[in-house]
Amino acid sequence: MCLIAILTDFGTKDEYVAAMKGVISSISPKAKTIDISHQIQKHNVKQGSYMLKRLIGYFPKDTIYLGVVDPGVGTERKGLLIEAKGAWFIGPDNGLLIPAAQKLGIKRVIKLTNRRYWLKPTSSTFHGRDIFAPVAAWLSKGTEPTNFGKVIENWVNLENVQPKVKGDTIFGEVLHVDDFGNIITNIPTDLMKVDNEVWISIKDALFSTKIRKSYGEIKRGELLVLIGSSGFLEIAKNQENAAKYFKVKEGAEIRVRHS
Amino acid sequence: MCLIAILTDFGTKDEYVAAMKGVISSISPKAKTIDISHQIQKHNVKQGSYMLKRLIGYFPKDTIYLGVVDPGVGTERKGLLIEAKGAWFIGPDNGLLIPAAQKLGIKRVIKLTNRRYWLKPTSSTFHGRDIFAPVAAWLSKGTEPTNFGKVIENWVNLENVQPKVKGDTIFGEVLHVDDFGNIITNIPTDLMKVDNEVWISIKDALFSTKIRKSYGEIKRGELLVLIGSSGFLEIAKNQENAAKYFKVKEGAEIRVRHS
Amino acid sequence: MCLIAILTDFGTKDEYVAAMKGVISSISPKAKTIDISHQIQKHNVKQGSYMLKRLIGYFPKDTIYLGVVDPGVGTERKGLLIEAKGAWFIGPDNGLLIPAAQKLGIKRVIKLTNRRYWLKPTSSTFHGRDIFAPVAAWLSKGTEPTNFGKVIENWVNLENVQPKVKGDTIFGEVLHVDDFGNIITNIPTDLMKVDNEVWISIKDALFSTKIRKSYGEIKRGELLVLIGSSGFLEIAKNQENAAKYFKVKEGAEIRVRHS
Repeated sequence: MCLIAILTDFGTKDEYVAAMKGVISSISPKAKTIDISHQIQKHNVKQGSYMLKRLIGYFPKDTIYLGVVDPGVGTERKGLLIEAKGAWFIGPDNGLLIPAAQKLGIKRVIKLTNRRYWLKPTSSTFHGRDIFAPVAAWLSKGTEPTNFGKVIENWVNLENVQPKVKGDTIFGEVLHVDDFGNIITNIPTDLMKVDNEVWISIKDALFSTKIRKSYGEIKRGELLVLIGSSGFLEIAKNQENAAKYFKVKEGAEIRVRHS
Repeated sequence: MCLIAILTDFGTKDEYVAAMKGVISSISPKAKTIDISHQIQKHNVKQGSYMLKRLIGYFPKDTIYLGVVDPGVGTERKGLLIEAKGAWFIGPDNGLLIPAAQKLGIKRVIKLTNRRYWLKPTSSTFHGRDIFAPVAAWLSKGTEPTNFGKVIENWVNLENVQPKVKGDTIFGEVLHVDDFGNIITNIPTDLMKVDNEVWISIKDALFSTKIRKSYGEIKRGELLVLIGSSGFLEIAKNQENAAKYFKVKEGAEIRVRHS
Repeated sequence: MCLIAILTDFGTKDEYVAAMKGVISSISPKAKTIDISHQIQKHNVKQGSYMLKRLIGYFPKDTIYLGVVDPGVGTERKGLLIEAKGAWFIGPDNGLLIPAAQKLGIKRVIKLTNRRYWLKPTSSTFHGRDIFAPVAAWLSKGTEPTNFGKVIENWVNLENVQPKVKGDTIFGEVLHVDDFGNIITNIPTDLMKVDNEVWISIKDALFSTKIRKSYGEIKRGELLVLIGSSGFLEIAKNQENAAKYFKVKEGAEIRVRHS
């Protein structure tokens, strides 16, 4: 339990992530940290939650995921430690950690209340540094989970994260536009097959295409609907920026219909 | 003495920070590095110095802070190793390291002159890689500080970094605009109390407000003057960008008056 | 063989680099990773290859360089493991790794074919995570290089990377514009001497100047042609942005003539 993977919406220009790592190193000098991303859209809990969900399969057993996209910091929102099958999640009780934890299987959820493991003074504006980072560090050192607080049975779930199916149409959402301009949706590709022909409606565009599995199959600049490397439907342009082409951002609707 | 925390204005797209880390790993393979920030405004020594000062409380004892905001590289400006209470600072003699070192208490300041610990050839353009990184690495391995050079009694201090008080008004400065658009000033909050009513003048705006301690107390988009998580007065808009709202950048003046 | 240095064009906002590090940590928990840069221009293999070449001198012996600028992912392009003198290179067979490996001296080149060391399922879109990262991790644990595939004698070289000399003029190229706006060319400075007078033609500008070795020799805002810290000719403006001044980007031509 010595690897702590960190996801925030803090950006990279400030000292905030470093402060969290400093706190972790102070408590648990042997803990290793890996940055997942600090460029989640500010306060976009849904985007962060899906990035965690896409990522978790690739980390070692017993990784501690420390997620801080936390618009409610300083309010009554709880802090959580979630024990899932083969992983731990620490962060605010706003749904951020739930999709990833559910994917692995939630074993128990603990509400963080024991101030003994928090930084003092504990600010009202930066629980990432003052509560979540020290709890992650103590956990990595083997502190008993129930020392941090009591097991609870209710927590906040994200709303409207699953695509809806009406008749033969799937109504999904753009969850993430990556740095290449690839459009990553919330539509799982379990039920889709390579070479299926589909109709796609996104923003002002409507087109039909085959589902592909690689950029290499088509020419530069061509549109590509593909089974993404993390199990969700993606729309790309080979070596070009699909999101700019469609003028699409996180939150946009996408409809898919088998033809 | 195995943790080296690095702050620069190099940005993240180039190989410059990696070159410093490669040099450190070559000399001291067990040293662990943590990035504080590499997005200090180019050549903004004051911004870098205050970020260091805000951050130092959160790192382990004996951390080596390697700071390179160095517009004078290649001139006669000296290189320094500062021993402070519980920490070490390495970087250019331009004031960058002083506020943080003074906060902890300066024990001695050594001028880096012993070329035996420098990379060869030693460039005139990149002392971060060729002088400061190797000195940090050798220090982390236990090299005696006085091996790097001689103790000196004079060094460069930053000018005009303390807010001024005239009558009942504090004249401060915007030191940092963070990635959320929060405006971080150089006004320490030691003497301010939550719920104090103050008048704030910044750019074209003048308003009175209570001092708060958390974003959660107010509605989304509302203005917030708060005791920041690092001990300086901050101006924020809850879940919105205060710096864009006020059109404020680093260096702007801010006036605070108790009402 | 425990240090893995990573260079990609993935950017920093997505989870892609973290996925590679998660895979590495899963296989080789003791491996240490260092980020070179993830902000190579999308698909700009030449820019990435020269950054690697400029950097390699500063890393420890036996560093594993993991380079993924890979527009051909999912096509027939091969994956390579290159053993060079004192270093290893892993990535696509598109020229990215060759200039750095040649600088050190290539000992053997292995085509990656043994799927036993790949992630399963192996995507067609993200070989960085599914092939190159696990191979790097297994190599760092001491896996015999020939276990990954067979030695080959032919690989893809970059074209047009060396400056051309016609008469007394050198025709070079802008390889990299750094975060300071310094213009880094492909013209090696082996044959140039400090204080040589040269004529420079770049974009719409033509000027003559002395070759310098440091920013500190001239006034703020003055033009500077200097022997860069990595052995290539650079054009800078002291504390200002030369690339913006000349409106120059990667790929622009530069001509140098001794006067």
